[in-house]
Amino acid sequence: MKKVAVILSGCGVYDGSEIYESVLTLLSIEENGATYQCMAPNIEQMHVVNHLSGEPSEGESRNVLIESARLARGEVIDLATASAADYDALIIPGGFGAAKNLSNFAIEGSNSQVNPDVVAFTQAIHKAGKPVGLMCIAPAMTPLLFGQDINFTIGNDPETAGAIEAMGGTHNSCGVDEIVTDQELKVITTPAYMLAGSISEASSGIRKLVEQVIRMA
Amino acid sequence: MKKVAVILSGCGVYDGSEIYESVLTLLSIEENGATYQCMAPNIEQMHVVNHLSGEPSEGESRNVLIESARLARGEVIDLATASAADYDALIIPGGFGAAKNLSNFAIEGSNSQVNPDVVAFTQAIHKAGKPVGLMCIAPAMTPLLFGQDINFTIGNDPETAGAIEAMGGTHNSCGVDEIVTDQELKVITTPAYMLAGSISEASSGIRKLVEQVIRMA
Repeated sequence: MKKVAVILSGCGVYDGSEIYESVLTLLSIEENGATYQCMAPNIEQMHVVNHLSGEPSEGESRNVLIESARLARGEVIDLATASAADYDALIIPGGFGAAKNLSNFAIEGSNSQVNPDVVAFTQAIHKAGKPVGLMCIAPAMTPLLFGQDINFTIGNDPETAGAIEAMGGTHNSCGVDEIVTDQELKVITTPAYMLAGSISEASSGIRKLVEQVIRMA
Repeated sequence: MKKVAVILSGCGVYDGSEIYESVLTLLSIEENGATYQCMAPNIEQMHVVNHLSGEPSEGESRNVLIESARLARGEVIDLATASAADYDALIIPGGFGAAKNLSNFAIEGSNSQVNPDVVAFTQAIHKAGKPVGLMCIAPAMTPLLFGQDINFTIGNDPETAGAIEAMGGTHNSCGVDEIVTDQELKVITTPAYMLAGSISEASSGIRKLVEQVIRMA
């Protein structure tokens, strides 16, 4: 049975992993006959956002690994301890956590960097010839992770796409129910909640991404 | 288009709503051609649990409505402001939040009480002849919400079932991929993560529950 690593970035769209994307990913992995292991870096979140008001919650701090455990029913491991050899593929759901915790793209844009644990694990998976799927804003990390030749999508927002392309790679406009596959680099991306207006819309593209990742694994 | 109210109890299996159950409920509602509105009581959580260690997080407090907003991408309303006339049905996902925040069953067992906002809204839906679905441990509230004649399931755990039956009603043993329908009272229950060993197992029963709730609405 193929085993997919899933990197989470907290729990909640505004400061962590987008919950719907993450859960639909896990469901789809099982529905495609594979299994998964969630993992996350053991670092503090960039900040905590009150998801009712949309405002940062001043004076509050939360840990990415602990909040990711909340999303994953406690079944999460420290990304620093994960070995790429144990997995056949990797998927990184979106949410602002991908741009605030896994990287600092939300703040630094074209000058952003990716967390060292994320770089090490993802590049180990990639160098072993295994596919990597990224959704929503997570593809903002693709030029830094996979190099200048990467083809990716974050939907159709020209400003965000331009900020990513300034780091390298080529953005491809893509509908919410479609995926972009870089066949050479084995990297699959889909817009998910960069475009989705509903959970069933998000589901359509996520299912295609997971199916493609597992097919290429 | 039928509109389903969904009462959340926070965000995370050990101190709030079970996230997978909640997300699968929302997806299934849309897949059945209906729409939804999430709502939650504006109260403090009983406590906060570190989902990595499984231990209570001493000195930390979180608000049920704010954390439910985290689960629902910000799209949640205060249960106290919701009107039953606006909805065709109600679903309450599980997670310990149902037994710690929506009620105090986790502490008081057979002597438990249900939060007044939950009682008022649920009974208004029920008295209007609209169906109510509850999953996982949430059916522990059914005798207090729907009276002595209720038929319900929480799976097959005799101790938990007995503690609920001491408040009234009749427990029916039920597999993870099945539902129990009280046709007279229009109350539908399923074990979900009281029994599920995987997200796809949980999905099977939840999909049946949502389909039945919407069919009866």
